[in-house]
Amino acid sequence: MIKITRALISVSDKTGLIGFAKYLESKGVEIISTGGTLKTLTENGIKAIAIDDYTGFPEILDGRVKTLHPKVHGGLLGVISKPEHKQKMEELKIPKIDLVVVNLYPFVQTVSKPGVHLDEAIENIDIGGPSMIRSASKNYRHTVVVTDPNDYKTVEESMKVNDGSVDADTSFLLMRKAFSHTAMYDTAISSWFNKLAGEKFPDILNLSFTKKQKLRYGENPHQGAAFYEPLFTKSEFSPLQGKELSFNNMLDFDAAFHISALLPDNTVCIIKHLNPCGIAYADDTLEAFRLAKRTDPISAFGGIIGIKGTVTGELAVLIGETFVEGVIAQKFEPAALEYFSKKPNVRLIEIQNFQEALDEMDLRPIHHGILLQDRDYATITEKDLKIVSKKQPTEEDIRGLMFAWSTVKFIKSNAIVYTEENATLGIGAGQMSRVDSVQLGATKALNVGLSVVGSYVASDAFFPFRDGIDAIAKVGAKAIIQPGGSIRDEEVIKAADEHGLIMVFTGMRHFRH
Amino acid sequence: MIKITRALISVSDKTGLIGFAKYLESKGVEIISTGGTLKTLTENGIKAIAIDDYTGFPEILDGRVKTLHPKVHGGLLGVISKPEHKQKMEELKIPKIDLVVVNLYPFVQTVSKPGVHLDEAIENIDIGGPSMIRSASKNYRHTVVVTDPNDYKTVEESMKVNDGSVDADTSFLLMRKAFSHTAMYDTAISSWFNKLAGEKFPDILNLSFTKKQKLRYGENPHQGAAFYEPLFTKSEFSPLQGKELSFNNMLDFDAAFHISALLPDNTVCIIKHLNPCGIAYADDTLEAFRLAKRTDPISAFGGIIGIKGTVTGELAVLIGETFVEGVIAQKFEPAALEYFSKKPNVRLIEIQNFQEALDEMDLRPIHHGILLQDRDYATITEKDLKIVSKKQPTEEDIRGLMFAWSTVKFIKSNAIVYTEENATLGIGAGQMSRVDSVQLGATKALNVGLSVVGSYVASDAFFPFRDGIDAIAKVGAKAIIQPGGSIRDEEVIKAADEHGLIMVFTGMRHFRH
Repeated sequence: MIKITRALISVSDKTGLIGFAKYLESKGVEIISTGGTLKTLTENGIKAIAIDDYTGFPEILDGRVKTLHPKVHGGLLGVISKPEHKQKMEELKIPKIDLVVVNLYPFVQTVSKPGVHLDEAIENIDIGGPSMIRSASKNYRHTVVVTDPNDYKTVEESMKVNDGSVDADTSFLLMRKAFSHTAMYDTAISSWFNKLAGEKFPDILNLSFTKKQKLRYGENPHQGAAFYEPLFTKSEFSPLQGKELSFNNMLDFDAAFHISALLPDNTVCIIKHLNPCGIAYADDTLEAFRLAKRTDPISAFGGIIGIKGTVTGELAVLIGETFVEGVIAQKFEPAALEYFSKKPNVRLIEIQNFQEALDEMDLRPIHHGILLQDRDYATITEKDLKIVSKKQPTEEDIRGLMFAWSTVKFIKSNAIVYTEENATLGIGAGQMSRVDSVQLGATKALNVGLSVVGSYVASDAFFPFRDGIDAIAKVGAKAIIQPGGSIRDEEVIKAADEHGLIMVFTGMRHFRH
Repeated sequence: MIKITRALISVSDKTGLIGFAKYLESKGVEIISTGGTLKTLTENGIKAIAIDDYTGFPEILDGRVKTLHPKVHGGLLGVISKPEHKQKMEELKIPKIDLVVVNLYPFVQTVSKPGVHLDEAIENIDIGGPSMIRSASKNYRHTVVVTDPNDYKTVEESMKVNDGSVDADTSFLLMRKAFSHTAMYDTAISSWFNKLAGEKFPDILNLSFTKKQKLRYGENPHQGAAFYEPLFTKSEFSPLQGKELSFNNMLDFDAAFHISALLPDNTVCIIKHLNPCGIAYADDTLEAFRLAKRTDPISAFGGIIGIKGTVTGELAVLIGETFVEGVIAQKFEPAALEYFSKKPNVRLIEIQNFQEALDEMDLRPIHHGILLQDRDYATITEKDLKIVSKKQPTEEDIRGLMFAWSTVKFIKSNAIVYTEENATLGIGAGQMSRVDSVQLGATKALNVGLSVVGSYVASDAFFPFRDGIDAIAKVGAKAIIQPGGSIRDEEVIKAADEHGLIMVFTGMRHFRH
C-alpha cells in the first residue's frame, strides 16, 4: 500500500485533469505542479505549489529544465522503508512524493504533421517527463506513476477502497504501463530520426505497436492473438460492415490489398490461404471479376476479394452469388453497400487509394531472431526484357507476358501462372519442385474448362532443368517469361527453340514464401 | 561543430575508458565524473571533478540520485547559441557540458542471470544515465553524446581533424544511436516486467532487436535485408561451416528446426521453399533420412535438412549424394564434420537441444499493422481422437494416423499428407482447394513409385465436401485424420463409411499460411 500525501502533476494532455486533481485535493493531497498544468489547476481553483517554489530553483532554458532537481527525484526515488534513505531525506529536506501524474510532449503527433520543422520536432522531445516517470517507476513499490488519463479512475478507485492509499498491484500495473510508454516514446524519436537519415536497417531496430484489437484467436483456435497498429500510421482495415475480422481474414485482406495495389486500375484478385486463385484486369471491375473468378470458381468459395476500383451494385450482386469472407475495394457505391447490408457477415473494407497506402518494410520472425527486408515492390519495364528464343514476341505477346509476370510474384513459390493478355487461366502454387507447379497450373485450368493453348506462362524463378519447358510445350502454351540465370539456361533456351516457344528473361526473380 | 571543453563521464562498462579519458585530458577537456568511474579515472592518474563537488549536492540514496541536478542538465540542455540561454547559464553558474559519455547499468545482463532476484533487477534500472543521454541527445546540435565504447574512436577522430571539435554529422549520428539505446533499454525493462506478469499481448508492444548481420539481399536480389537478434536471446543460427546464410536459407533453416523440434527423436525433414518435401523418423537418423528423402528426391535438391539427432559420418555421405544448401542437427560427429569440410559451401548448424530452444511468439506484418500470436505448438494425444467411422482403427493405425497428424501442421495450407506409420509418402501443399491437395499428394507419391494403398491421410482442416474423401478412397488410402467441424461432417462421414475408410476427428485445426 502506498499512502498518497503528495503528488506531482505535469501533463501535456489535460484530459480529466481537473476532476482528478479535485479528488486528490479533497483527500488532502499536496499538489506540486509545473507551467501550463499549474496554470490550469489554479484557474480551476485547485491549490498547487509551483515547481520552482518547491525546489527553490527557477524553471530555466525555455522550460527545458524544470523538474530535473534532486528534491524532485530524491522524493520520487527514496525508499522510505529504508531508515538510511528516510534519514537522508529528512536531513536534506526532501519530502517523499507518492504520486506522479505525467504525460509527455506529443512527439508523434508533432512529427506526423505535414511539413513539420526539425526545430519543432526537437522541442517536442520531452526530457523532464520521462525522467520523472522512470524515477517513479523504478520506485513503484513506494511511488505511484500515472501516464494515461484513463488511469485517473483506476487510482481514485484504489484510493477509495484503501483509505487514501494505492494498492501494490495497481502500482505494479501502472509501472509496467509507464515503462512501455517511455520505451515507445524513445522508439518514436529514434525511428523518426532514422527515417530522416534514410536508415532502413539500423544497428538497433526498435518497433512499437499499440493494441488495436484482441482477436478471438490466431491462425488456429488454440492460438491466442491480437492485432497491433504501428507508431506513425493508423490501420486502414476498419470494415464498413461485416463480422469481426479474424487473424486469417487479415492476412488474406493484406494479400488482396497488395496484389491489387500493384496492378493496373480495375484489377480484381481472389485470395484463399494467402494465394491468389484468380487475377484479372479489364475496362471495368465487373468484367475483371468475371475473368478472375473463372480461373478457379471452386476455390473462390470463402475467399477474400481485392478490387482496385469501384464495386457497383451490379458487381456486388455478382460477387454475392458465391459465399465470400470479405471484399476490399477503393470504393463501394451506395447500391453495393445496400446489397451487402443484406449479407451482414461479409466484411467490406474501403481504402480510397491503394497505391498511396503501401508500406515499405517487411519482417519475418525466425528462431531467436527476425529478418527485415524491403517489400518486393520492384518491377521491370518492357525495355528490361531480353528475348532469348529464336521466335520473337509480337506487341500483344509482350503485353501478355508482362501481365503474367506481374501476377506471378504474388503466388507462393514455386509459382507458375498461365495467363491470357489480362487474366489468369491456371495457377500452379506452392510446390517444392518447379515442374510440379508447371503441371499443376495447366491441370487447374483444364479442370475448369479453360484452354492454355496459346497462353503466356510466367515462372517466379529460373527453370533449373529443361523438364519444365517440355511440360509447358506439351500443354500448348505460346510464350514463357522467367528471370533466367540458371547454369542450364542454354539447355532451357534450346528446349524452348525446339518447341517453337517464345521465351523472354526478366533478370529479376520474385520468390514469395 | 561542437567544441569540447567539458565532459561528463559516467559509465558502467569501463572498456576503453582510460584511453579515451587520457585523450580528452590531453586536449585540455575538463572532466566531471561519478562513483566508480571517478575512482577508475583517479587511480589511473586522470584528473576529474567529483559530481557532488560539481553540483554542490551530495550523491544520495545509495547512488539513486547523483546527476539529476539542474547544473548538470542545464549544462547539457543549454542552447548556447541563444543569448537568453547563455545569459541565464552565466547568471546561475551553469557551465556548458559539451560531451556526455554514459553507458547504462546492465539491466539485460542482470535479468538474464538464472534466478535473478527482483530487487537486483530493480537496482539495475538506470535512472540518471538515460536522463543525461536524453538531455544531451535533445541538444545534439550543441552537446555530443557517446553511449558505446566503440564510438570513443569516432569522437577522437572527429576532434583530431576538427581541432578539438566534433562535427555536426558525427553528433547527429551519435544522437540517433543514443535514442535507439534508451528506447531499447526501456523496451528491455518493459518486456521483462510484462513477462514477469505473464502478459503476452500487452496494450503497447515494444520490440527491440540488434543487427547481427547485414544480408546480401532479401527474399530476392532486389530487396535489401538484415538479420536481427532479439533482446534476451542469442541467435543459434551460427553455422559451423558453409557459405554465408542467405535470407531464404534462414527461413528454411527455421522451418527445418521447428519441424524436427516438435517431432520424435531421430526425425529428419527436408525443406524447400518453407514446405517439407519429406518427413520421417526411425530408430536412427540414417534410416529416417532415407525415408524422408524417398518422398520427393527431386525436390530434395538444394533443400535444407533438419535432423533431431546426430549426423554420423555415414549419414553425411548419404546426404552429400545430392546437392543440399544446409543441415541443422543436434550433433555432428567428427566424421561428419570431416566429410562436410570437403564441401565447404554446405552450411551446418548445430543446436544441442532442439526442444529447449523453442520460441513462444509469432508475428506477421500486414498492411499498417502487425499480427501477434502464439506459435502453433499445441498437440493432441490419442485420447483426444474421436473415431467417427464405422470401421475402427487398430493400434498400429492409430500410430500411423498420429504420425500423419503430427506432420500435416508443417505443410502450407491447404495441406494433405499421405504417410506410413513413420514416414511421409506424398505431400499435397499450398493449394487453394482441398481436393486439389488430395490429388496432388497422391500424384506426387505415385510419381516417385510410392504406393499410397493402405496409407494414412491427414488434412490440416476439415473437408468442406465429400469430394476429398472420394478422391482419397480412389487412390486406396486406408484411414483419414482431420479436425472435423464442417457443416457437412455427416455427409463426409457417410462417404468414409461408404468407402470402408477409417476416419478420426482431432477437434484441432492446423492452418499454416
